[in-house]
Amino acid sequence: MTAAKIDLPVHRIRAYMEPGPIVLVTSAHDGERNVMTMGWHLVMEFSPSLIGCVIAGGNHSFDLVRASGECVINIPTVSMVDAVVGIGNSSGRDVDKFAHFGLATDRAVEVAAPLLRDCHANLECRIFDDALVDRYNFFILEVVRAHVARTPKNPETLHYTGDGVFVRAGRTISRRADFRPALLGNGR
Amino acid sequence: MTAAKIDLPVHRIRAYMEPGPIVLVTSAHDGERNVMTMGWHLVMEFSPSLIGCVIAGGNHSFDLVRASGECVINIPTVSMVDAVVGIGNSSGRDVDKFAHFGLATDRAVEVAAPLLRDCHANLECRIFDDALVDRYNFFILEVVRAHVARTPKNPETLHYTGDGVFVRAGRTISRRADFRPALLGNGR
Repeated sequence: MTAAKIDLPVHRIRAYMEPGPIVLVTSAHDGERNVMTMGWHLVMEFSPSLIGCVIAGGNHSFDLVRASGECVINIPTVSMVDAVVGIGNSSGRDVDKFAHFGLATDRAVEVAAPLLRDCHANLECRIFDDALVDRYNFFILEVVRAHVARTPKNPETLHYTGDGVFVRAGRTISRRADFRPALLGNGR
Repeated sequence: MTAAKIDLPVHRIRAYMEPGPIVLVTSAHDGERNVMTMGWHLVMEFSPSLIGCVIAGGNHSFDLVRASGECVINIPTVSMVDAVVGIGNSSGRDVDKFAHFGLATDRAVEVAAPLLRDCHANLECRIFDDALVDRYNFFILEVVRAHVARTPKNPETLHYTGDGVFVRAGRTISRRADFRPALLGNGR
């Protein structure tokens, strides 16, 4: 973990994942490691802190995540768009993407997969439920540790639409005053 | 369906859902109807066109979706933020949200739940797999019909972070020239 990041209580990761950014998933197993792009994910529960996601069965990362039972979800900002595109268009079977794209890493606390230093958030995850992996490649992950950058508070993130096109999100709109107190924080 | 909307092949709805917007889910059963906000969803497959989502068990909509086996996912634009907040902060058990928030509706083609006219996309859905509903309130839906506005091509959408704050997404970045052809279109 870099000094620029702080621990976030894992039940609060919704703020980072619910907006739906493209993410970079790092994995490691038995001396191998990889990184892939992922756009198919959702928040499923606050506590335990659960994220569901689809990792295509043909991907090298699928094998590493399934075998190790772990991964890290890293959230890039708009400035990393070229690395995101490059990672999504290459296979860890052919190239060491960390070296090829110059990705600086840090050690995770709970899992073997590395943290991507330049991402503004890193979520260390363990597989929580694999009931739908065989049928849909759908993993339910528990976030066991979360590291987030202190600044900026609302970095611009990338959201993938397919066909090589992203939309960028960043400007906020607060309607906090219009919410029932029970629905703020972690209530739904 | 309004004249301003066209049918979209259902395998192409990824462009609308993968970026992660907050959506409005309409449902109808046995003379009752309701609308709720939903931020916990993901794309799961192109064909069949599958979306996974969490609908909290205490919600009136949960009962209507489960009993009818159907719903419509409606994607609002930034201009609808006040309706989105109001819908998320009231219960269909207490108020007719359609009347209260002045929501114009159109008839769906395949399902009983109504389409929200002012949303820029409406996805008619049927429950495809309820294996994880009891454990996680997680529904796998098949999109059976999709209606999308002709213009604008990239409307600004709302993405929820919790705590009453949304981020807005709209400006696009194309990196289409950097993608392997197999990964464009519906490939991953």
